[in-house]
Amino acid sequence: MNRQQLIQQIFARKSFLCVGLDTDLKKIPQHLLKEEDPIFAFNRAIIEATAPYCVAYKPNLAFYEAFGVKGLAAFEATVNYLKTNHPSHFIIADAKRGDIGNTSAMYARTFFEEYDVDALTVAPYMGEDSVTPFLGYEGKWVVLLALTSNKGSADFQLTADAAGERLFEKVLRTSQLWGDAENMMYVVGATQGRMFEAVRRLAPRHFLLVPGVGAQGGSLQEVCKYGMTEDCGLLVNSSRGIIYASSSDDFAEQAGLKAKALQAEMAVELERIEKK
Amino acid sequence: MNRQQLIQQIFARKSFLCVGLDTDLKKIPQHLLKEEDPIFAFNRAIIEATAPYCVAYKPNLAFYEAFGVKGLAAFEATVNYLKTNHPSHFIIADAKRGDIGNTSAMYARTFFEEYDVDALTVAPYMGEDSVTPFLGYEGKWVVLLALTSNKGSADFQLTADAAGERLFEKVLRTSQLWGDAENMMYVVGATQGRMFEAVRRLAPRHFLLVPGVGAQGGSLQEVCKYGMTEDCGLLVNSSRGIIYASSSDDFAEQAGLKAKALQAEMAVELERIEKK
Repeated sequence: MNRQQLIQQIFARKSFLCVGLDTDLKKIPQHLLKEEDPIFAFNRAIIEATAPYCVAYKPNLAFYEAFGVKGLAAFEATVNYLKTNHPSHFIIADAKRGDIGNTSAMYARTFFEEYDVDALTVAPYMGEDSVTPFLGYEGKWVVLLALTSNKGSADFQLTADAAGERLFEKVLRTSQLWGDAENMMYVVGATQGRMFEAVRRLAPRHFLLVPGVGAQGGSLQEVCKYGMTEDCGLLVNSSRGIIYASSSDDFAEQAGLKAKALQAEMAVELERIEKK
Repeated sequence: MNRQQLIQQIFARKSFLCVGLDTDLKKIPQHLLKEEDPIFAFNRAIIEATAPYCVAYKPNLAFYEAFGVKGLAAFEATVNYLKTNHPSHFIIADAKRGDIGNTSAMYARTFFEEYDVDALTVAPYMGEDSVTPFLGYEGKWVVLLALTSNKGSADFQLTADAAGERLFEKVLRTSQLWGDAENMMYVVGATQGRMFEAVRRLAPRHFLLVPGVGAQGGSLQEVCKYGMTEDCGLLVNSSRGIIYASSSDDFAEQAGLKAKALQAEMAVELERIEKK
């Protein structure tokens, strides 16, 4: 999906919500364990309940790999289900890959040719040749880690060089030599508050994938205040806050209600930029 | 496998060679494609030919994930084969993972409980809570990226802060607050030459996993000169240089010869520290 199509979806659905499919067998309703593929059964129900309120899904590979071959099959089934039944939803594989050139090229083929997802999260530590192999695919996106939502983000990402440029700023600036706002997004945690201003100074047009609303405590209003652009420029992710809203039979219904509530808040934020 | 056992293996086998199992269906001898699991068939033959000359194997997950469920099954079969038939060889899953705490904890369970490998490569960008979930396992190791072998390593890893400390040095220093030489190694590329001196100033006892000898052009002699400790402190990896030594029927034999030649060079280097 290209940038224009994504923006269109956001304004059509009045939502920039991404639902994180961090599906954990230990947390899903226990009656689903009788299903042949409980992870996929859970995801399908969550997708059907939330699709009207979101524009993107983000399965985190860690949760699928944890169940080995069966987990990977559930990931594949989920992606195929989305592509068949919800082809206008954007799919982000959250895998945080990145390796030397020939290895990153293998990962790129896997995610963009085999699974055919729209985007992949990538870690920047290894530099240019670890990122560029992901950039040669029409309509596909690198979502590069910039300023993450977790406490450890302060350990290295905020380290400033002699000229005062912080590592996440160097990542934002340098990576724009490799890709642009049509094929690269950045991860910026919702917990980062006013730091979105610093991000926007360096990346005024890029989409930002924003985790950390919900379970991690980030504020949607603050993210919009400092991070939104005239094209929206945000995909705000919630995982646990939506998919584990209830552990009973009504889990999908409750997830849908959580997604709907977030979508309503997002519609208000989007109205502000439409009125400009 | 703990540190003492690893050192014992190195001196017993007179080798600190790690064989990288970057198995690519496009590069393996074509007659193997008739096998039910060609990747595993290739790995088993390579392992049997090289086991006398190495102390470790490092399958790179990118190459297995590229073949989806089948690739993952080949990875599992390879790890199980090693654990059953070569239990004194150290197994490193090269996956370069790292995510927020609860997600890293999932990856840790996958690699250390399900697959039960000895070590996992981890990317440091997300800081403390992305790394520490991997450190709570007895006899298991984090192999943290510090100064990688690729050209892109210069993009961020060499950036110095106001006090002159470079990012890879900060990673070496800070991560020692989280783990120690008994549960943490560092990736330092063989292509980094004298930079091993800077690494050793900060990490005098830690084992270093050194990729980049062979196809990437690093020198074993230089790595030993600047990086070896009295306990050896090195695992030097070669992937393509060994496993693709020949694409004919004699591929395993030729791989064995390449491994044997590297082991012979390593035995000379190890004699120097034994004589001290």
